[in-house]
Amino acid sequence: MNEPLLERIERVRQAQRGKYYLNDTVVSMAHGSGGKSSQALIEGLVVPALHNPELARLEDCARLQAGGQRLVVTTDSYVIDPIFFPGGDIGSLAVHGTLNDLATSGAEPLGLTLAMILEEGFPLDSLRRILESAGEACRRAGVSIVTGDTKVVGRGKCDQIFLTTTGVGWIRVSHQLSMDSVQPGDRILISGPVGDHGVAIMGARGDMGLELDVLSDSAPVSSMARRLLEEIASVRCLKDPTRGGVATALNEIAQKSGCAIAVEEGQVPVRAEVRGACELLGLDPLYVANEGRLLAVVPEAFAQQALEILQADEAGREARIFATALAEPVGTVYLRTSLGGTRVLDMLAGAPLPRIC
Amino acid sequence: MNEPLLERIERVRQAQRGKYYLNDTVVSMAHGSGGKSSQALIEGLVVPALHNPELARLEDCARLQAGGQRLVVTTDSYVIDPIFFPGGDIGSLAVHGTLNDLATSGAEPLGLTLAMILEEGFPLDSLRRILESAGEACRRAGVSIVTGDTKVVGRGKCDQIFLTTTGVGWIRVSHQLSMDSVQPGDRILISGPVGDHGVAIMGARGDMGLELDVLSDSAPVSSMARRLLEEIASVRCLKDPTRGGVATALNEIAQKSGCAIAVEEGQVPVRAEVRGACELLGLDPLYVANEGRLLAVVPEAFAQQALEILQADEAGREARIFATALAEPVGTVYLRTSLGGTRVLDMLAGAPLPRIC
Repeated sequence: MNEPLLERIERVRQAQRGKYYLNDTVVSMAHGSGGKSSQALIEGLVVPALHNPELARLEDCARLQAGGQRLVVTTDSYVIDPIFFPGGDIGSLAVHGTLNDLATSGAEPLGLTLAMILEEGFPLDSLRRILESAGEACRRAGVSIVTGDTKVVGRGKCDQIFLTTTGVGWIRVSHQLSMDSVQPGDRILISGPVGDHGVAIMGARGDMGLELDVLSDSAPVSSMARRLLEEIASVRCLKDPTRGGVATALNEIAQKSGCAIAVEEGQVPVRAEVRGACELLGLDPLYVANEGRLLAVVPEAFAQQALEILQADEAGREARIFATALAEPVGTVYLRTSLGGTRVLDMLAGAPLPRIC
Repeated sequence: MNEPLLERIERVRQAQRGKYYLNDTVVSMAHGSGGKSSQALIEGLVVPALHNPELARLEDCARLQAGGQRLVVTTDSYVIDPIFFPGGDIGSLAVHGTLNDLATSGAEPLGLTLAMILEEGFPLDSLRRILESAGEACRRAGVSIVTGDTKVVGRGKCDQIFLTTTGVGWIRVSHQLSMDSVQPGDRILISGPVGDHGVAIMGARGDMGLELDVLSDSAPVSSMARRLLEEIASVRCLKDPTRGGVATALNEIAQKSGCAIAVEEGQVPVRAEVRGACELLGLDPLYVANEGRLLAVVPEAFAQQALEILQADEAGREARIFATALAEPVGTVYLRTSLGGTRVLDMLAGAPLPRIC
């Protein structure tokens, strides 16, 4: 039954590509959202233009081989606005983001690189604060920024500071982590409340015209990921649900695995302030970015053990088992609401929260 | 005699730092020039803020260990203006630049990453051209872009497109390549005419108000570097003289090694158009950026062999032995002019050619 599913997914993708080619001639904010438009841009333009089958796997990390060593490399640019926000800044965010991509691929970090694009006139005191914050995030994780680059552009040619961090890691113990491996019956955990980062950023931008007491969750998930992988050999996959939020991450898993995913609305941890802010803005917290949360998919038999591992970590005390993989409807994510109804959770469309990371 | 030299260099650096702290409170274009101000920013702010001794080596590449494998990682952001220019574009430039950093560190590429920051409204046709060019540069070099990232910022928040490429390589045969290892008597080669890239960019910008028939030299130096390292065990160091040009690269070698370097003006290969354009603009071609030239330092006994190796490569047919390392004056680079005089070639100061890469 596996082939027809994949063919169907491919047809949907082809259709999306066609649509994308018909509608878009220039870059839009949605292309950077991490959702549907981002996927269309990558599948419809980036991968064909580069003629690159390896990139077509579209995962956050790539695997490399050097002699007998299995390496992992991941890269991300950070263009967040504002650059200082409750719970972090662009420097610590970049380090945490890169560490989390390595951790969710089962890799231990060997080193990070940091490339900076600075706007002429950017205060050196702000640069120092950002770098000290990045350095502190590295020290806590026991990793170093090993090389970097600095470019400067004129006033008005970038917005203060953009960072690009790349992480190189190695896989010391092999895990068959892969979104493809998720099977019906598997349970899905989240390490803490969803949507904190996105709401903290909106609050810092003054988008809501009110003071919020929400901090970004920006933090490494490395220790939780490491313990899960050490103690549960059959972890299917790990993800950090950043741009596009938990719903978009679950859609990627559903598309890659061909499973359906049912989310129990009552089991999704959401802070009251985050829920309130999202209601005000007409957003669903499941689509709001997180920067320190771990999604884990494990076989049902290991779900309780995984929950205990997450809750034993300071960063995972509010972890929950909140979703289940099912056989059908193929490739679909849906919410079982508290009132007993169901609602499809598609990938993020549009760009409701630009420059969130 | 080695200690006093290093102490003296350290005193000079301390003095530069002091000056930098007194004068600068915001980022200036010169901080991105690759010359003195860039060095002051990195040594005076970036390295102390990150508390990172490994970064303090200030080389373009960092070494990492994974099991028994020696890895090299290098990262660069590209903010060149214009993004399409005679002889290349931002896509091929980024790939060549990263390949050249790996090649000059003696590493073979394992894979590249590509992070894009796009301005809302950027034409997708231009993006496709840039990515096809990057893909073609990769194919020629037998390397792939293995993972990437896409961010979008609003109109006026970046200038069309910025790319950051990171290269991961491995060192299969160990060479003690290091600027520290350069010794008095060593000879220095350049693989071709200097200044082509910078002059081509200025021409494309219309800075000179005249049509120029100069193409950027943007190209990989990998095959020349590989053959030099295969055939000459005692190569001291390789460099690609990009921002700040050949003079700045030689100053780095002089500072790190404690040697003096004498450049024979008559032996510096410069195209007539490049020389003419530089005269018009009051620039010295030795400070103008190259993107496909290889600087090699070898013991005198191997200089002729190295020259033959370079000249046997299509990219190195105009190679020359153009400079010599000497014992004194310590850490200084100077030009022996065709008329028999001498002139000190300091590191690049200021930012005469912003956004050259």
